[in-house]
Amino acid sequence: MNIVNTVDEVRQRVKAWKKEGLSIGLVPTMGYLHEGHQSLIRRAAEENDRVVVSIFVNPMQFGPTEDLESYPRDLERDAALCEKTGAHLIFQPEADEMYMPDFCSFVDMSILTEGLCGKSRPVHFRGVCTVVNKLFNIAGADRAYFGQKDAQQLAVIRRMVRDLNMDIEIVGCPIIREEDGLAKSSRNTYLDAEERKAALILNRSLSIGKKLLENGERDVKKVIAGITEAINTEPLAKIDYVDVVDAISLQKVGRMEKTVLIAVAVYIGKTRLIDNFSFEI
Amino acid sequence: MNIVNTVDEVRQRVKAWKKEGLSIGLVPTMGYLHEGHQSLIRRAAEENDRVVVSIFVNPMQFGPTEDLESYPRDLERDAALCEKTGAHLIFQPEADEMYMPDFCSFVDMSILTEGLCGKSRPVHFRGVCTVVNKLFNIAGADRAYFGQKDAQQLAVIRRMVRDLNMDIEIVGCPIIREEDGLAKSSRNTYLDAEERKAALILNRSLSIGKKLLENGERDVKKVIAGITEAINTEPLAKIDYVDVVDAISLQKVGRMEKTVLIAVAVYIGKTRLIDNFSFEI
Repeated sequence: MNIVNTVDEVRQRVKAWKKEGLSIGLVPTMGYLHEGHQSLIRRAAEENDRVVVSIFVNPMQFGPTEDLESYPRDLERDAALCEKTGAHLIFQPEADEMYMPDFCSFVDMSILTEGLCGKSRPVHFRGVCTVVNKLFNIAGADRAYFGQKDAQQLAVIRRMVRDLNMDIEIVGCPIIREEDGLAKSSRNTYLDAEERKAALILNRSLSIGKKLLENGERDVKKVIAGITEAINTEPLAKIDYVDVVDAISLQKVGRMEKTVLIAVAVYIGKTRLIDNFSFEI
Repeated sequence: MNIVNTVDEVRQRVKAWKKEGLSIGLVPTMGYLHEGHQSLIRRAAEENDRVVVSIFVNPMQFGPTEDLESYPRDLERDAALCEKTGAHLIFQPEADEMYMPDFCSFVDMSILTEGLCGKSRPVHFRGVCTVVNKLFNIAGADRAYFGQKDAQQLAVIRRMVRDLNMDIEIVGCPIIREEDGLAKSSRNTYLDAEERKAALILNRSLSIGKKLLENGERDVKKVIAGITEAINTEPLAKIDYVDVVDAISLQKVGRMEKTVLIAVAVYIGKTRLIDNFSFEI
């Protein structure tokens, strides 16, 4: 697998491809790739002539008490997975390649970043917007691929691209789950056996919410209450949020009229996990 | 002169040019063009196959008490000047083409934006960074041209491009002055005859500062005092700031060791004017 560490190397490679008229797909990741990432790479390979995977655990999107240091890393395994899945280039910069000592610019967003994960992770989306903006500028890709699991991230990136007139297409891809329903996440590796079982409550509680909606329930409070109640049956689970928001603006909805996003964040022990689904009204 | 009002039209035009292998220069302006702008357009025409001039009085970079409404506008005159000076396309969007009602993204910067004009214009550089970032993404230019008169703006844009890995070259061009030394500015039009004379104090006071430096003065306080004293001899002038900063980081300097920027902002009546020079130590 072709791995480069500098912005200049990526640029040169991509410019050469573009000169040949080849299209470029970008899959931004923090590494420790799982089948969720692989589904993005596979889709990118189907839709583009060349696929760049970035692997960068971005310090700027971690709060001071979060898991930047312990975030799992395994470049060798990641490279093998990328190779197998159809990627052509890995961009794996060190932090000082991305952030010079006097770095002081940032991309940020109001409104969409204020609820859901933004509430308990106040610096997170500034870090995400800034690094993704940089990666888009570095890779000059035609399309970039993100998972629906990070639904707020996907909505925020779509909005950034629209608002800042970035010339790139954002492709959202479905959540990939373990056989028992747990959404794939690099953070699942933090869970011990007991917590791993307890973590099923995220998907299970969302299924209960979905059933309520399918049965015609349109009272937001009742849907939230149903999901909350289900999560609270699991002693190892501690709710960060359970929310129903407009799928595009991420604003709280009073009445359900358009497509809504039903999203949860739950601590299982010390591990914070997220899951969600969209529902068309 | 070819004038377009939408992002899509600019994109189509530029993409067609790029397909032909032509290089693109961008000159972002707020219109009411003067010889300062013309020097940028001329330079852009020398260095690129095609020149795009944007004319947009960007609401986001004006504070609530500033001169957004009264800012002078004259598209017909601007178009004729662009034609004459070698531009190929004017992009003149309405505010709602640049900012949708639910626009909520922004590009901002710390450190470089905190002193000088940033101090008395707290939202200004967020507006500048955001709109320039958008214009760069829209025009996809190889080079963009800015005047040294707005020295802080130029430094901020250079830093934004570096920090966010934007693939564009920033070209800074010398200040263009009236015969009597006043730096050309669209805002000079606000001055009545008496104020017009008084405004000469900006350039004159800077000349005094320059002479001090040329004579070997290296005490920042003494240089600032010399300029301040000179401005205070003019009854119509009210100082916003007189400062000596590092030319790259825009940070206050204790000792003069590298190239410094000596910059002033002065109210002449109600009109706020700026001027500056750089000095290599």
